[in-house]
Amino acid sequence: MTEPEPLHPLLRQRWSPQDFRTDHELDPVAVATLLEAARWAPSAGNSQPWAFVAARRGDDMHQRLVPNLLGGARRWGPRASLLLVNLCHRYVDESDYEYSEFAMYDLGQAVAHLTVQAQAQGLSVRQFRSFDRDAIEDLLTVAPGWQVATMAAVGVPPATPAPYAAKFPDGQVLPRARRDLSSVQTEGRAGSVDPGGRESR
Amino acid sequence: MTEPEPLHPLLRQRWSPQDFRTDHELDPVAVATLLEAARWAPSAGNSQPWAFVAARRGDDMHQRLVPNLLGGARRWGPRASLLLVNLCHRYVDESDYEYSEFAMYDLGQAVAHLTVQAQAQGLSVRQFRSFDRDAIEDLLTVAPGWQVATMAAVGVPPATPAPYAAKFPDGQVLPRARRDLSSVQTEGRAGSVDPGGRESR
Repeated sequence: MTEPEPLHPLLRQRWSPQDFRTDHELDPVAVATLLEAARWAPSAGNSQPWAFVAARRGDDMHQRLVPNLLGGARRWGPRASLLLVNLCHRYVDESDYEYSEFAMYDLGQAVAHLTVQAQAQGLSVRQFRSFDRDAIEDLLTVAPGWQVATMAAVGVPPATPAPYAAKFPDGQVLPRARRDLSSVQTEGRAGSVDPGGRESR
Repeated sequence: MTEPEPLHPLLRQRWSPQDFRTDHELDPVAVATLLEAARWAPSAGNSQPWAFVAARRGDDMHQRLVPNLLGGARRWGPRASLLLVNLCHRYVDESDYEYSEFAMYDLGQAVAHLTVQAQAQGLSVRQFRSFDRDAIEDLLTVAPGWQVATMAAVGVPPATPAPYAAKFPDGQVLPRARRDLSSVQTEGRAGSVDPGGRESR
């Protein structure tokens, strides 16, 4: 197997923290710049099947979102400087006809571009699905065909972790594990893929 | 509307070319580094629902893939230094039970991370769906539950375009158009989103 070279620092140093510094605040320009990165992501036929609701810690939308977080996100979500609701254009109006075969794929791309831009702004992003989707869709009056897909917490983690290993304040170490490159790059036989470990993201 | 600051150059200068320099070749280390970026992308519960087949211009896999390209990709696809087949883990084995609700979303993220790494290596990526999916799935002996989702052409475009505007060798200018930021960032009402122009990606 050919060994790769080190990744660009914006990718190499990226991780998904589970805690955020509450003394950090994001200004509206920083938020607009994050969304600008998502906006310029590529998409199938330029379909741009995405929309975002941004809530800065303490603002009105933030206060309405926080009670709808679930699981671990109830702890660290409210501590992030910014909560994002990531919406996907799944269907055409009220039909079950897909707006785009790649709507979720492209929303994932847009959030990934936002994540890279966040790194460039000294921020970290943790995406999550642990929230009450129905409640948040009611809260936002989501249009027909649109869906709340994921949320993201954006901010500054308490300590800078070593690359490829996340250390948490309580001393827990959660390695950033992935399948081997030889499993990810198949030789024309996806049948041989073994998804392997699921320890972290 | 708050004006964003300029994006990081890796994002600001990214575009999806429709032509590639045939005098450019990618070595195996560069290919491994691209896939390394995809490998380290985040995914729901670290599910890593992705796999990739890499074919460098002229190698055996490349020669088997090229006849299955369709539409415009028949012209520019073979000219790229690298063709990637991006596979998604959609279902559990032969069932219709989803492997992950976010499989396509996460594959999109992985390809986006690969795209950013490509920019850092002086390369451009154009993703596409214009290929005979059934034929390529037969060719690759894709495992149950896996699906060929997209392909990507990776290489060096003939000329460096101005940011936010793509110029093609035949003189055609295809602006990189996107919906306004005020449309992408909703104020808690996705119902007000207007997808707008679809000129490019």
